[in-house]
Amino acid sequence: MAEKFIYADNAATTRVIDEVKQEMLPYFTECYGNPSSLYGKGRDAKHALDSARGRIANIIGCDAGELYFTSGGTESDNWAIKGVAAANVNKGKHIITTKIEHPAVLNSLKALEKQGYEVTYLDVYENGIVRPEDLRAALRDDTVLVAVMFANNEIGTIQPIKELAAIAHERKAVFFTDAVQALAHVDINVGELGVDLMSMSGHKIHAPRGIGALYIRKGTRIANLIDGGGQESRRRSGTENVPGAIGMARALEYMTSPEGLAKREEIRALRDKLCDLLLKIPNSRLNGDRYNRLPGNLNVSFEFIEGESLILWLDSFGICASTGSACSTASLDPSHVLLAIGLPHEKAHGSLRLTLDIDNTDEDVEYIADCTAKVVDKLRQMSPLYEDYLKNNK
Amino acid sequence: MAEKFIYADNAATTRVIDEVKQEMLPYFTECYGNPSSLYGKGRDAKHALDSARGRIANIIGCDAGELYFTSGGTESDNWAIKGVAAANVNKGKHIITTKIEHPAVLNSLKALEKQGYEVTYLDVYENGIVRPEDLRAALRDDTVLVAVMFANNEIGTIQPIKELAAIAHERKAVFFTDAVQALAHVDINVGELGVDLMSMSGHKIHAPRGIGALYIRKGTRIANLIDGGGQESRRRSGTENVPGAIGMARALEYMTSPEGLAKREEIRALRDKLCDLLLKIPNSRLNGDRYNRLPGNLNVSFEFIEGESLILWLDSFGICASTGSACSTASLDPSHVLLAIGLPHEKAHGSLRLTLDIDNTDEDVEYIADCTAKVVDKLRQMSPLYEDYLKNNK
Repeated sequence: MAEKFIYADNAATTRVIDEVKQEMLPYFTECYGNPSSLYGKGRDAKHALDSARGRIANIIGCDAGELYFTSGGTESDNWAIKGVAAANVNKGKHIITTKIEHPAVLNSLKALEKQGYEVTYLDVYENGIVRPEDLRAALRDDTVLVAVMFANNEIGTIQPIKELAAIAHERKAVFFTDAVQALAHVDINVGELGVDLMSMSGHKIHAPRGIGALYIRKGTRIANLIDGGGQESRRRSGTENVPGAIGMARALEYMTSPEGLAKREEIRALRDKLCDLLLKIPNSRLNGDRYNRLPGNLNVSFEFIEGESLILWLDSFGICASTGSACSTASLDPSHVLLAIGLPHEKAHGSLRLTLDIDNTDEDVEYIADCTAKVVDKLRQMSPLYEDYLKNNK
Repeated sequence: MAEKFIYADNAATTRVIDEVKQEMLPYFTECYGNPSSLYGKGRDAKHALDSARGRIANIIGCDAGELYFTSGGTESDNWAIKGVAAANVNKGKHIITTKIEHPAVLNSLKALEKQGYEVTYLDVYENGIVRPEDLRAALRDDTVLVAVMFANNEIGTIQPIKELAAIAHERKAVFFTDAVQALAHVDINVGELGVDLMSMSGHKIHAPRGIGALYIRKGTRIANLIDGGGQESRRRSGTENVPGAIGMARALEYMTSPEGLAKREEIRALRDKLCDLLLKIPNSRLNGDRYNRLPGNLNVSFEFIEGESLILWLDSFGICASTGSACSTASLDPSHVLLAIGLPHEKAHGSLRLTLDIDNTDEDVEYIADCTAKVVDKLRQMSPLYEDYLKNNK
């Protein structure tokens, strides 16, 4: 098959980088104690876990005691939403979110709707940004939770989290942000942002699957999602995934190190170049905000083609890309995010998401642009819709 | 400190064995695709995940479509209990379990009790075994779930699961067994046993933390615990932990291979020898059943001493052991399991759990027995209770 291999789907998942793997490995085979055990090997594991917690807390600007490890972003999202809802049921059963949240948020809310909760779904601007005045207007005395994602997984749009959190707090609602896509790609300080809960994932930032975290600001009322032996200060039971926690800490440290931050700017420049190149393709449009978006994220629609066909062709050229989100299992429905920013069904179907990261190069970008132009052209030549369009526009 | 190092706490967690690590490693750094992605790298990951599922399903005797990966045993227990309760609320709100379940089961049930569910806690015989007639007597028309662990994590007792499942089914209750401790140590075929749900964990069988599974027999009504992108046939969302799943499959294959089965018998023989040696210590007693217990499990109480002191002394001799379960965070409460089998508080406090596994040797056993005898003797010499006892019995 293809000799070339370019991974440009880093919003779906990432490669575990070597330094993360190296730091994790001893915790599988040598320092494998259970942190709850009383003997030295257990205490060593506990120490390693505490250290990982402290390293992450330090980077996101919270106390170590406010950071709880989970199995990943989806669990963190479920816990935040279902946990806050259950713990605040006496205050009310109204929750506010946006139309462009991740399925882990939307489907947690759907589960609550079946239990009698009422959910308001805020619209977004054409660039994918939530209007703060919409949030203010939607808040009620019985609103217990506001859930707005930090950065969107499909179009990369970054929300005005600090402003939204402040508005939620005016009405005493808890503010939760899903920062799975934002973590390690934008600067985050939970204290400055004023959020009450924030979910994070390891495998989106070059740590492995099976580890994530939930920041819970001290004093936030939340019920457990997973009960048991009382690990994680009695809030999230289950033997702690020490290698995962260590890997997540190391990955976050790397991504926010001077080297990582320099890479972030390189990635942003590569993305901008790729954006310019792809928008030269006729009948294309950028989805999401031109500037206020994640550094590696690019989402472009091409008229008259099917995104799935584009992905499969690009795959044959050795390019890994996505139509929308890889987070929901293969489905032929158009992206709920692209529909929410106003794209008609046919344009939403012809979208391409490219998410660049630390491994991508200038050469990659040129190659991706080149292949995409060729494939789009090829697919359009097979499209009866495009034929009609040409006839009507000549 | 100690030069010697003997890990005899394999019920708390296990070392990831080399062949498991080797098979997992490429999935961190090379085959790291998201199984939901359309391109080749994603399909390769999907294939690996399906293969891991098939390998485990094959060993426990179910269809691959009945096996769902989770983040571990605790999540599986929570899902089974809360999920079945939520999905069957129209039938009733009564659940039956035993007094010796794992905290992941007991605390999931406590959470349900707060929601108005009624739970019956069955007593056990002095050897830790549930009386089938007690289950039959406790079943009601509104009983939706019976949860009985396969083998106990503290005293290793193996329950008559097949008989209990059949009794539950007579009254149309769903039967769930927590097999976290039993998996890979006893023969398990879910079809022959007739259980409806069974939870499993990776890190208790030489695979890593962060991976577990729940067997759900086709047709069993269960609600989701974790909603989102629809992975695991829409039942357990979150990007799948492919390296973890591969590791769990490999570990289970090893433990049930001819080599693993031969080791199982060696472990049983070592355990029996260790049992005989420890019971030579005066005023000691075996907790749990002499024969009907996990091959590596030994639980002995020594009168007039504190288990915690014993553990710390053994640690100074390089021996990792446990007082009861490492699954609940350090607590001074006596084990609920030992109380349930009738031990008075003072005897329950002086218990030692040793769980042998594939790495342990005959030399280990002699050394453990030797050190334990010395330490027990030393601790007793410091005990005023022992002094009184000697006075009264001379």
